[in-house]
Amino acid sequence: MDKKINVGIVGYGNLGKGAAAAVKQQPDMELAAIFTRRNPQSLDVGEPNVKVLQVDDAAQYQQEIDVMILCGGSATDLPEQVPAFAEMFNTVDSYDTHAKIPEYFASVDKVAQASGKTSIISVGWDPGMFSLNRVMSEALLPEGQTYTFWGKGLSQGHSDAVRRVDGVKNGVQYTIPSEKVMEQVRNGENPKVSKSDRHVRTCYIVPEEGADQARIEQEIKTMPNYFDEYETTVLFISDEELKENHASMPHGGFVIRSGKTGSNHNQILEYSLNLDSNPEFTSSVLVAYARAAYRMSAEGSHGAKTVYDVAPAYISPKTQTELRRDYL
Amino acid sequence: MDKKINVGIVGYGNLGKGAAAAVKQQPDMELAAIFTRRNPQSLDVGEPNVKVLQVDDAAQYQQEIDVMILCGGSATDLPEQVPAFAEMFNTVDSYDTHAKIPEYFASVDKVAQASGKTSIISVGWDPGMFSLNRVMSEALLPEGQTYTFWGKGLSQGHSDAVRRVDGVKNGVQYTIPSEKVMEQVRNGENPKVSKSDRHVRTCYIVPEEGADQARIEQEIKTMPNYFDEYETTVLFISDEELKENHASMPHGGFVIRSGKTGSNHNQILEYSLNLDSNPEFTSSVLVAYARAAYRMSAEGSHGAKTVYDVAPAYISPKTQTELRRDYL
Repeated sequence: MDKKINVGIVGYGNLGKGAAAAVKQQPDMELAAIFTRRNPQSLDVGEPNVKVLQVDDAAQYQQEIDVMILCGGSATDLPEQVPAFAEMFNTVDSYDTHAKIPEYFASVDKVAQASGKTSIISVGWDPGMFSLNRVMSEALLPEGQTYTFWGKGLSQGHSDAVRRVDGVKNGVQYTIPSEKVMEQVRNGENPKVSKSDRHVRTCYIVPEEGADQARIEQEIKTMPNYFDEYETTVLFISDEELKENHASMPHGGFVIRSGKTGSNHNQILEYSLNLDSNPEFTSSVLVAYARAAYRMSAEGSHGAKTVYDVAPAYISPKTQTELRRDYL
Repeated sequence: MDKKINVGIVGYGNLGKGAAAAVKQQPDMELAAIFTRRNPQSLDVGEPNVKVLQVDDAAQYQQEIDVMILCGGSATDLPEQVPAFAEMFNTVDSYDTHAKIPEYFASVDKVAQASGKTSIISVGWDPGMFSLNRVMSEALLPEGQTYTFWGKGLSQGHSDAVRRVDGVKNGVQYTIPSEKVMEQVRNGENPKVSKSDRHVRTCYIVPEEGADQARIEQEIKTMPNYFDEYETTVLFISDEELKENHASMPHGGFVIRSGKTGSNHNQILEYSLNLDSNPEFTSSVLVAYARAAYRMSAEGSHGAKTVYDVAPAYISPKTQTELRRDYL
């Protein structure tokens, strides 16, 4: 058997923990080390064989690590870390600030081309698997419309927003696709709909004692950018209910392409995810693409890449012969 | 603007007609010629600018055609034609005899490696898009089960089989996924089910006048391999009903991966197709992959390929910059 792919993880939040668990599920990978900005001694990763190291010491481990999975946030961590790591390592990340992807790609590409490393950026499910399905389904059915629906899922940004409302003790927000619009799309009706037509929002709020619930509801429903354009439902619950029913991080969504071919036939393609754990799935995608980064680097395909550049065989542990014989 | 990709089509049945229509939808392709075994003068392709030529004359058009789409059948046409064409042209085909794909691949690869051409084999939806989703979803979620459901769709082979039953004047057969099993799978129950547990079959039969309907029903339901292991419904209808309601060729299906990550979270991935015209969709996939064959050939990536070897960007007419900016 070939040597295993030695994986490093940078950052040990939800994503980093998910990546560590995902590496264990892969037959051809080994978790070599976790790098953290915290005190390494303070981290219990539950794996005595896995080194926990200071992120600033990473440069010393270039010989031991085949590919580094960057598990920081898109706002400040990744734009700084990934170009720095791409000088020394093959990398994979989940950079998801859609509007800034072109400049992010350019900055990573410049470094990785020079260092002869391979960096796959913006990997996950959106950007990631959903992006792939948007491009592929449009290539297959050039005449038509593509619809992305998110949810049902807990939105971190919107949950933060409702928690900032005066009188709110705690709360979560779910983004939910509009059933009515989904049905129109699946029927090939190609409705003209905005993002706010395609989704509704439901908030579960734990109020402070004695808070004015009507005012909280009103304030949430009229919050600019976050809620004002959406059909929003606000429900008040207890602390216990929140803990019991709203502690996990489910998410998911749908990419639907509704196209027409030849003699005006409707052709509907749909890709959907129903995830009990959003961060664990995102990190599972990162880990599979870490395999691709390692292999493409070994073949001399250097620089920054996206999911569009990765032939699907590169993310699978199976051989080409197995893929053709058992899966085609 | 770059020059358009000149496409040739070999065979002008349902698939060839679909391919001709699909090429017209692609902004960067032009249909150069249709090759047929029939008398070219007998074919009305409805396009005065498209040459209709004898298939035996194809060798003369090597300079004019960038990629040839082979639209024959898997039983006898493709195993003979594709190796012959791969000596002269980049090719794409929809070879779908699953059990023989490895030997078919080897025979095409040998020729294409020697001639310096690129041949993408077994393109369509199954094999094709479904194969991709089986491999990718398993790579992302190594612990789990993958389920393929076909239908609701008209099955050509099973329709032929019911029409061979004594007393049957005409008839069609639909393969239909079991709703019950689909629900179990979507719930993450990972049921152990065979192909016959996952599907039911419904036949619409036009009986000959005076035929014994009970005997026909019995004979269909007990037909070995085709029906005996399936829950089968036989319905008798008139000639007119058959023409009116069962003349199109709908199909589709589902690939569902039910996996577990990290702390025992269910993660469900689903890819589905709902096709009003099975041959038109298959040929739309062939045409998008013809673009990939042309580009990979231009880059020197020769030999036989499958969908697993094709980076998604190759099937899209968009530039890399557009893909990253507008779709990621």
